[in-house]
Amino acid sequence: MRIVAIHEATVPLSVAARSANISFDAMTASAVALVTDVVREGRPLVGYGFDTIGRYGHGGLLRERFIPRLLSADPELYWDGAQIDPDAVWRILMANEKFGGHGERSGAVGVIDAAVWDLAAKIAGVPLWRYLADLDGQADAPGRVAVYASGGHYADENDREVLRADLQKGIDAGHTRMKIKIGAAPLADDMARIEAALAVVGDGALALDANGIFDLTTARAYLAALAGYPIAWLEEPGTALDYALNAEIAAEAALPLAVGENLFSFDDARNLLRYGGLRADRDLLQFDISASYGIVEYRRILDLFAGAGWQRGAFAPHAGHLLAMHTAAGLGLGLAEVAISTASLFGQITAQVPIADGIATLPSEPGVGFEQLPVFEQLFGKVLAH
Amino acid sequence: MRIVAIHEATVPLSVAARSANISFDAMTASAVALVTDVVREGRPLVGYGFDTIGRYGHGGLLRERFIPRLLSADPELYWDGAQIDPDAVWRILMANEKFGGHGERSGAVGVIDAAVWDLAAKIAGVPLWRYLADLDGQADAPGRVAVYASGGHYADENDREVLRADLQKGIDAGHTRMKIKIGAAPLADDMARIEAALAVVGDGALALDANGIFDLTTARAYLAALAGYPIAWLEEPGTALDYALNAEIAAEAALPLAVGENLFSFDDARNLLRYGGLRADRDLLQFDISASYGIVEYRRILDLFAGAGWQRGAFAPHAGHLLAMHTAAGLGLGLAEVAISTASLFGQITAQVPIADGIATLPSEPGVGFEQLPVFEQLFGKVLAH
Repeated sequence: MRIVAIHEATVPLSVAARSANISFDAMTASAVALVTDVVREGRPLVGYGFDTIGRYGHGGLLRERFIPRLLSADPELYWDGAQIDPDAVWRILMANEKFGGHGERSGAVGVIDAAVWDLAAKIAGVPLWRYLADLDGQADAPGRVAVYASGGHYADENDREVLRADLQKGIDAGHTRMKIKIGAAPLADDMARIEAALAVVGDGALALDANGIFDLTTARAYLAALAGYPIAWLEEPGTALDYALNAEIAAEAALPLAVGENLFSFDDARNLLRYGGLRADRDLLQFDISASYGIVEYRRILDLFAGAGWQRGAFAPHAGHLLAMHTAAGLGLGLAEVAISTASLFGQITAQVPIADGIATLPSEPGVGFEQLPVFEQLFGKVLAH
Repeated sequence: MRIVAIHEATVPLSVAARSANISFDAMTASAVALVTDVVREGRPLVGYGFDTIGRYGHGGLLRERFIPRLLSADPELYWDGAQIDPDAVWRILMANEKFGGHGERSGAVGVIDAAVWDLAAKIAGVPLWRYLADLDGQADAPGRVAVYASGGHYADENDREVLRADLQKGIDAGHTRMKIKIGAAPLADDMARIEAALAVVGDGALALDANGIFDLTTARAYLAALAGYPIAWLEEPGTALDYALNAEIAAEAALPLAVGENLFSFDDARNLLRYGGLRADRDLLQFDISASYGIVEYRRILDLFAGAGWQRGAFAPHAGHLLAMHTAAGLGLGLAEVAISTASLFGQITAQVPIADGIATLPSEPGVGFEQLPVFEQLFGKVLAH
């Protein structure tokens, strides 16, 4: 078996949304198709990878470095006669890459890694969650995973009503856990938003995402104001690489923190573990799988935290659509994230996954299941036109 | 004044060299030309930026995100009527970029930043070192800087003789401080290399670069073997983001350590300061200026370390050719790095700078001085052909 072609295309994910951190108007993602000479039902097997959201596509890096490296590699390095070896592909991709500097490159490697796992599951003839569960020794994995729904962005007009309608849409879709944005408005306004959100979410769980905008003083003010409110977690109170700030906030926060979506490697995850002051009994780890060198690196991170006494239930990968849902279900992670809004292309990727009482049931087709999506053509049409 | 065009091109820097970490066969760099409508001597002023070496060019990111952002910005944001504002350009480039993930992007921003500073110095009609010194309140800056010469890569055949010849070439070129590679051979072989090198360097200074390959046990073995040898510094004993390993090595190392070339931001530099166990009385800081978001971010890093009691003399930027030499001379840093080998294109960039007794005298032409180089066409020909 040989990878005969790797196509990539940049897909606009433009969303009229703002967090406390950035605007998503010009956001893009990379789509990757890994074409093999393995023929199934008369057609060559193709592995598909689609980026997460938030860090832009990786077209340049894919074309300049990573696609040529993999195409020029001896297939015997990654093919054992029956299956493709994602770890071997990963080593080929990272040849002649210096350590450190984990950003962008981590996403380019991650989206190829995603396509490799899609391919591996298809070769095995099982959905990716099942393939990962078998690899992990989880024979009884149910193919289901708890999910939470993200939304509650700031609206320029009628913010409170837009927020309520957004959350109601989540409840109507079967969600019980929801997350809204905070940190881009004054504390008093944010508290009014939070109260409005709690009124809709009711017995469900409400989480708050500050997108890393707080300094210690602001974080303290929010923590004080939030005392007594039933908040599931406070996400990214401080900027990602300020571990000392995170530790200071954690030392004062009774409620769970959720961090890690802007750390993109084993190295950075280890520093968070060492210096971030996180608490294994309550905090959540949100490393974004495909933005962080993919499932190969993610499994190293799982092992690292397991060695420090963390349970799989503490892992709740950022974004990542179907890929992250499969990984969360297959490896027994705590939560997967989906967008409340299914108006955007990104939200559409997981819009067909059945959700009831906050639990998603994963597809049973081999691989990740992109081919079965109504938006398959929008995701991979440009790639396949190559 | 307006930036009317930004051209970029990828330039091969292929060098038949190996460190303990990677091969440089396929290495590339980005060249950037920032064309303005300011006319001097009948021609539009152009700012030039050329990448450092080691992390590949940034063509994709430049075309996808950073060049379009700067070209579409209102010139009033970066032009005050008489001068371009590098800090304002930096803010424009980083708009809608999430925090964290400092790699690749940091080099794309850095090479544009380099061109902006070249332009600013040309508008002021002074060499960049003078422009930076004035900005920094160093009216008496001499336009000279201490340098060290890097070489001593492993040779497949006659390694010891090649090493001796390489170092002799450095001495003949006016160098007194030299650095060789270690860590890719067994300790006993490396010690023989080191003794051969010391015999050539004589009264000068010899530094050793392990390119991040050691674990704690190996680092200890080298430190023990090196006791009693006059070694100027041990560079990157451990991998860049393992601050705890660095702190453990620093706690046991009598000789100075030099680290930081694979950390690419203020955030990462701050973590090194907080957790790396470095010693302000002897260790060197080697953050690579243009790989780390450029001079704008570098000045933030200088301020950060100054606040922690570090002297400017502790800063010895990695690679960076003329840009780093100007910055080191203008801001009063301890050392600039040049390649012993002037056979490679990268080595050619600084080959014309006069060096005597280990001190380099910077050019006096306005800007960085690329236009005066014999290799100007090789560096910027592809860019100018746009």
